[in-house]
Amino acid sequence: MPQDKQTNRRIVLASRPHGAPTEANFRLESQHVPTPGKGQILLRTIWLSLDPYMRGRMSDAPSYVPPIAVNDVMGAGTVAIVEQSNHEDYQPGDWVVSQSGWQDFALSDGKDLFKLSGPVLKHPSWALGMLGMTGFTAYMGLLDIGNPQPGETVVVAAATGAVGSMVGQIAKLKGCYVVGIAGGEEKCRYAEDVLGFDRCLNHRSGDLSESLKRYCRDGIDVYFESVGGPVFDAVLPLMNTKGRIPVCGLIADYNSKDAPEGPNRLPLFQSAILRKRLHVQGFIINQDYGHRFNEFFQQMSQWVAEDRFVFREDIVEGLDNAPETFIGMLEGKNFGKVLIKVAGDTPTGA
Amino acid sequence: MPQDKQTNRRIVLASRPHGAPTEANFRLESQHVPTPGKGQILLRTIWLSLDPYMRGRMSDAPSYVPPIAVNDVMGAGTVAIVEQSNHEDYQPGDWVVSQSGWQDFALSDGKDLFKLSGPVLKHPSWALGMLGMTGFTAYMGLLDIGNPQPGETVVVAAATGAVGSMVGQIAKLKGCYVVGIAGGEEKCRYAEDVLGFDRCLNHRSGDLSESLKRYCRDGIDVYFESVGGPVFDAVLPLMNTKGRIPVCGLIADYNSKDAPEGPNRLPLFQSAILRKRLHVQGFIINQDYGHRFNEFFQQMSQWVAEDRFVFREDIVEGLDNAPETFIGMLEGKNFGKVLIKVAGDTPTGA
Repeated sequence: MPQDKQTNRRIVLASRPHGAPTEANFRLESQHVPTPGKGQILLRTIWLSLDPYMRGRMSDAPSYVPPIAVNDVMGAGTVAIVEQSNHEDYQPGDWVVSQSGWQDFALSDGKDLFKLSGPVLKHPSWALGMLGMTGFTAYMGLLDIGNPQPGETVVVAAATGAVGSMVGQIAKLKGCYVVGIAGGEEKCRYAEDVLGFDRCLNHRSGDLSESLKRYCRDGIDVYFESVGGPVFDAVLPLMNTKGRIPVCGLIADYNSKDAPEGPNRLPLFQSAILRKRLHVQGFIINQDYGHRFNEFFQQMSQWVAEDRFVFREDIVEGLDNAPETFIGMLEGKNFGKVLIKVAGDTPTGA
Repeated sequence: MPQDKQTNRRIVLASRPHGAPTEANFRLESQHVPTPGKGQILLRTIWLSLDPYMRGRMSDAPSYVPPIAVNDVMGAGTVAIVEQSNHEDYQPGDWVVSQSGWQDFALSDGKDLFKLSGPVLKHPSWALGMLGMTGFTAYMGLLDIGNPQPGETVVVAAATGAVGSMVGQIAKLKGCYVVGIAGGEEKCRYAEDVLGFDRCLNHRSGDLSESLKRYCRDGIDVYFESVGGPVFDAVLPLMNTKGRIPVCGLIADYNSKDAPEGPNRLPLFQSAILRKRLHVQGFIINQDYGHRFNEFFQQMSQWVAEDRFVFREDIVEGLDNAPETFIGMLEGKNFGKVLIKVAGDTPTGA
């Protein structure tokens, strides 16, 4: 079902998931397109970013972001075009990054918008990727918390994912030895051959602990954590003294309801923190580093202009495919940054 | 058995403990007092510091300090008097902090010595306490990693122990609300009435989670970790967003051999690190902060001169009582900084 000018299709949270989300947790609705009031802007969604953190917002457990209310539209970062504007800073046809969520149209008062200009307009979806929250997360987590030094070993999980692929490439730029972990041989070949990682290990084949040991002969100085679970268990024993673990996500645990069966590995982690003097730090990019976005954006824009990075987008067409795509992403079925192409540059239909 | 001039009594590691150490893991030996060679100094031990980290050195599991070899003398920080010197910087009668270990006499080349001078000579054992490794650990862990701000809530375990009592008092100096956790009513009364903590909770009575919740109404901003185990489990749910956890010890786990029974609480900790954006960092005072000892010593000397702190010493007479005292300390039987008074200022006996 394509976008049209009269109808706002939106996907709402129909119910909270127990464990892994299913399509029954989402509902597609149609409304009239809203009319912008005084000072408001009507935005039409072109690109919708799907990210693992959204799983957390579907639950009402205490978390770092408020939960989405049942029957509310699913939240998300989007790239949109201004359709109508009663705001002096925005004109129809402007491209912006917005928080429109999983829907065709949204209103904004302009405060949560970031206007796109210059080279990023050649590839607006990058504003959700390399030059957006994804790249910002990789950049700050790796450089500010991980603080990698030339020659150090950096291990990154979900190596071909949106954040992981950027972490590894930035670490290579900084002169590190980079080992990725990914699910599947194709992803691993890609990480080594295209992204330029020194190694990439398939956590679905063989003994990850053993292969990590083989390819991290000098131990691990920085582990960029976004998955948790068995990958973390394999990494921990190899962490070096004074190692750093920035934690930006725990995709392996998002769907779990209760503490898993024993043995209790918590004391083992605590003991590693003490004995190895580890620095472990969680961060949420906008809350912790929002004030440094310009610094990131300038540096990353320069690197992108110099063609330093490969950034793979896993694009699915059509808003109605968002739930299935999101569910697949949590299972690791994506290959690169997951984006829904909601519409073309000009609306179709009546 | 008192110290004499001919005999060096020393306590060696007889065997490695399995679980909690017993007296059978130690052996008292006698040797001739060694003769200092060229450039060497003969030291006579006056004060011997007993500290929980020594439990780690009795095992040969990988750790941040090399294990003590079986049949080697137990290592320890000591306050000693120079008996003989072939080193131009040291004269007989000088007081020093040394790493002489659990014995009456030791040789040194001077490189590992810290000469005592000025006011600390009035109370030389403080060089192992407030003005030594104990105070240094509290100072750096709390201020550098914990970074407490006025009005924030600081929780400290082992509140009347050597390090914990200093952490709480420094946090009070910095304008924090300080809640201690200790084992027993007497210790708790002492922490509140003498050390000036706002509250101290007895982890041996009632439900620690509930009482922590009651007395940390604004949550916990800094938890100074030295014990691990159930105290940590009670603290974690109350940690605030952007909380800090300096980890200087895990006394509850030192004697454990295997991972305890489930459920596995590791994902819960990881999830808290992420959701609350916690900063968790282990440190070993000399390795991480050795270069800042002078900064600490100057500030702390000034505070001590101003009589800002209460520092309780739990003194046991006689080197031969060191094993029993050490075992009791690991069970929390001590009350304050544990010191063995090995000898008086002048040697007795033949």
